[in-house]
Amino acid sequence: MNAVEKSLAGATKHTDRAGAVESAARDDAPDEAAKTGRWLLRRVAAILGDPPIEFAIRGGARVRSVAAPIGRVVFASRAHLASILADPWVRFGDGYSDGTVSVEGDLVEVLEAVYRASTMGDKPSWLRRAAGLAHRPHGNSLRGSRDNIHHHYDIGNEFYALWLGSTMAYTCAYYPTPTASLDEAQTAKMHHVCRKVRLKPGESVVEAGCGWGSLALHMARHYGVRVRAFNISHEQVAFARERAAREGLAGQVEYVEDDYRNISGHYDAFVSVGMLEHVGVKNYPTLGRIARRCLGSNGRGLIHSIGRNQPARMQPWIEKRIFPGAYPPALSEMSQIFEPWDLSVLDVENLRLHYAQTLRHWLALYETAGDKVRAMFDEKFVRMWRLYLAGSVAAFSTGTLQLFQVVFATADNNDIPWTRAHLYGS
Amino acid sequence: MNAVEKSLAGATKHTDRAGAVESAARDDAPDEAAKTGRWLLRRVAAILGDPPIEFAIRGGARVRSVAAPIGRVVFASRAHLASILADPWVRFGDGYSDGTVSVEGDLVEVLEAVYRASTMGDKPSWLRRAAGLAHRPHGNSLRGSRDNIHHHYDIGNEFYALWLGSTMAYTCAYYPTPTASLDEAQTAKMHHVCRKVRLKPGESVVEAGCGWGSLALHMARHYGVRVRAFNISHEQVAFARERAAREGLAGQVEYVEDDYRNISGHYDAFVSVGMLEHVGVKNYPTLGRIARRCLGSNGRGLIHSIGRNQPARMQPWIEKRIFPGAYPPALSEMSQIFEPWDLSVLDVENLRLHYAQTLRHWLALYETAGDKVRAMFDEKFVRMWRLYLAGSVAAFSTGTLQLFQVVFATADNNDIPWTRAHLYGS
Repeated sequence: MNAVEKSLAGATKHTDRAGAVESAARDDAPDEAAKTGRWLLRRVAAILGDPPIEFAIRGGARVRSVAAPIGRVVFASRAHLASILADPWVRFGDGYSDGTVSVEGDLVEVLEAVYRASTMGDKPSWLRRAAGLAHRPHGNSLRGSRDNIHHHYDIGNEFYALWLGSTMAYTCAYYPTPTASLDEAQTAKMHHVCRKVRLKPGESVVEAGCGWGSLALHMARHYGVRVRAFNISHEQVAFARERAAREGLAGQVEYVEDDYRNISGHYDAFVSVGMLEHVGVKNYPTLGRIARRCLGSNGRGLIHSIGRNQPARMQPWIEKRIFPGAYPPALSEMSQIFEPWDLSVLDVENLRLHYAQTLRHWLALYETAGDKVRAMFDEKFVRMWRLYLAGSVAAFSTGTLQLFQVVFATADNNDIPWTRAHLYGS
Repeated sequence: MNAVEKSLAGATKHTDRAGAVESAARDDAPDEAAKTGRWLLRRVAAILGDPPIEFAIRGGARVRSVAAPIGRVVFASRAHLASILADPWVRFGDGYSDGTVSVEGDLVEVLEAVYRASTMGDKPSWLRRAAGLAHRPHGNSLRGSRDNIHHHYDIGNEFYALWLGSTMAYTCAYYPTPTASLDEAQTAKMHHVCRKVRLKPGESVVEAGCGWGSLALHMARHYGVRVRAFNISHEQVAFARERAAREGLAGQVEYVEDDYRNISGHYDAFVSVGMLEHVGVKNYPTLGRIARRCLGSNGRGLIHSIGRNQPARMQPWIEKRIFPGAYPPALSEMSQIFEPWDLSVLDVENLRLHYAQTLRHWLALYETAGDKVRAMFDEKFVRMWRLYLAGSVAAFSTGTLQLFQVVFATADNNDIPWTRAHLYGS
C-alpha cells in the first residue's frame, strides 16, 4: 500500500450539506483548527466543481466528494491554502510550481477530473468569467506582442529541442491513426495543411508566425513553392534561417523577423499555424485585412489555432506564467477575421483530440528529459512546465479547449476544391 | 443576327462621367425624354454596380458600361423604370415576373454579372444594408413560421415533383464528381450527412424540418436507425407519411406535424437539413438549447443551411415573394446556436458550388416542365420561379451565398471521429 492508498484507505466518511464526504485524519483532532482546515478544503473543492479528488492539508484535515478518489491534492498548510483561495486560478499553479501544492496520483488524470467537474453539463461559466475579470491579459500592441512572444519562445532553442521531436513544430500534430509517432504526425500535419490550401509548384506563400520554420521548409521542399515567413521571435528566426541554409532551401524560403502587421506583397496563399492565439481578438479584423490584401482573386488561406466552444478568458495562470497575451477564441470571435472582408470560410476542422495526443507525446519526452531541464533551469521551472503540459493534455481531452483549422478563400474564387476527398487520397 | 445582336450592333457609343458608354437608338432623338430615359438607366446600372449588361427602355434609350455586353435588360417604359427605381430590390423581380422587365441573353449569366458587379472586391455593403432597412422580414413566431412555411412549401407537391428529381429533396445536393446526376447527388448528400454524424444501427435520430421525408427514410433504410422527423408543412408531412407507408418504413420513421420548438425526448443524433434558413437569428439559441437538451453525453448533430460570408439581409424580393421569413446566416450568427450551450463544432464544410450545380439541374427540369407549370398556375408564376431559380444559381456561383454543413457534438463527447477519412472511403 503506497502513501496515496494508505491515506485514502484510512479515511472515515460522512456527507455534508454540499454533498462532500469529509474525513478527519487520525492525527488531527476535530478541534477548531481542523474545522477551519476542512472549511477551507471544502471551499477549494467547491470552486473546482467537487471533482472526485481528495483535498488535504499536509498532516491535517482532508475532504473528498467520492468514496474512491482518483488522486489527492495536498496543501503545505492552512495558511498557504487560505492564501491560495484569495486568487485560486493563479496561486494553485504557483503553489504546484514551488512545491507547496503537491498532487498524488496521475497528474493528467487529476487535472482532467478538475476540468470535467468545472465544465460538464450546463453549469454556468461564472467561474471562468470571474477569473477573467480579475486578470486582464497582456496587450498585443506591436511592442506588447514582442515582449509577450519573447517571454515564451526565446527561453532557449535547446530546451524546446528536448521534447518537440525532430520537426521542432510547436503546434497540434495530425495523427492519421492514433498510433502514429510524434514526428510522423507533425509531418502529416504539414502535408494536411499544404493539401488544404492546394499548393502548386511555382506559387508563392506568406506565412504569419512560423515558429522554428519547419512548415515553410516543408512547403518549399515538397510543394515547390516560394515562402516568406514572418516571426517576431529572434531566437526562432535565427534557428530557422540556419536550418534553411543547412537544408539548401535558403533560396526558396525567406524568414523575416517582423510582425504580421507589416506583411506586404502579393501571394497565392496565406498560412498561419499557431499564431492566432497571440493576436488578440481586437486585432482579428486587422489580420483579416492583411490576408485579404495580400491575396489575389484566386487567393486562399488557412488559419490554425487553439479555440474554445464559447468565449472565455485564457486560464489565468497559463496567461500569467506561460503565455502572456494569449487567448483561444470561439468561432464567433474567429469570424471577425473573415467576415469584414467578405472572405469565404470553406472548411473548419476541429482537431482537439489530436492536440491532446500531441501534448501526451511532448509530456512524455519532457519527463524523460527532466534532469536536463533541471540543469538548464531549476526544479520550480521543471514543475511549472510539467503543470502546463499536463494541464493542456487535460484541457484538450476534456473538450475545454478546441483546435480549429479554418480554410478560407476570397469570395469570388471558384477555383476551390470540389470536395475534400483529395485530403484523404494516397 | 437575332434581336439581341441587332440591338447591340446598332449602338453608337460615347463615354459619360460615370464611365458608362451610352447610345441613342436610331428611332430615339436626343430630346428631353431620351435624356431622362438615359438618366434613369444610368441610375439603375449604378445601383447594380455597372455590370457588363445593356439597359434599355423598350423602343427608347439604352446605356451600357462595356462595348460587348453579355445581355440586355429591357424596361417597358420610362414611367415603369422610374417606379422600379423607387424600390429596385423588390420591383425589378416583380417587373420580371409580370413581363414589364425582360432579359435578353442567358438569364443566369446576366444575374451572375449583376451579383459580381455588386459584391466583387472590397465594395461597401451599403446597398444590401439599405435594402435591409427598407424591408423588415416576416417574423418567425410559432404562428408566423406556420404562415411563412405554408406560403412556400404548401403550393402543391405535384409542382415540386416536376423539377426536384425522384428524391424530392429540396436542399443542396452533394456531387462526388461534377458530372453526377441530380438523383445521384441527392443520394450522395444523404449518405454524406449520415456518415458525418456516424449513425449506428439501433440508434435514434430526431430531424428538425424534414421536407418531403427523403432523408429520414434514407437513414432508416440504410443505417438501421429510428427517426422522429418534425415539420410544420401539412402538405409535406402528408406526402412523407404516405411514402413511408408505401416503402414499408412507417415502423421506423415517425413524421410529426409540429414545430422544432416542441421537440421532446432523447436521441443519439440531431439532424436539420435546410430548416435553419426559416428559424430566424433570434431563435438560434432556442434551437441550440433544444438540440443540447435532446442529446446525451455522446450526442452529435448536423445543421445544413444556406449562409453568407457576412451578415446581410435576404435579397428582399426573394424574402417577399418566395421565402417569407427566410434569412441565410453568417457563421458568426450560426455560432449562436452552439456557443451558449457549450456545443463543440467539429466540422464545417462549405458546399456552395454544389448548390449552384443542384440549382442548375433544378432549373433545367423546371424549364422542361414549363407548360405543365403554366397549366397549374399562370405565366407570371412561371417567370417568378424562373427568376428565383436562376438568381439562386447566380448567388451560389458568384459566392454571394454559401452552403454550410456544420457537424457538432456535446462538449464532453470523446467518441467523435478521429479523422474525416471515413467520409471519403469506398
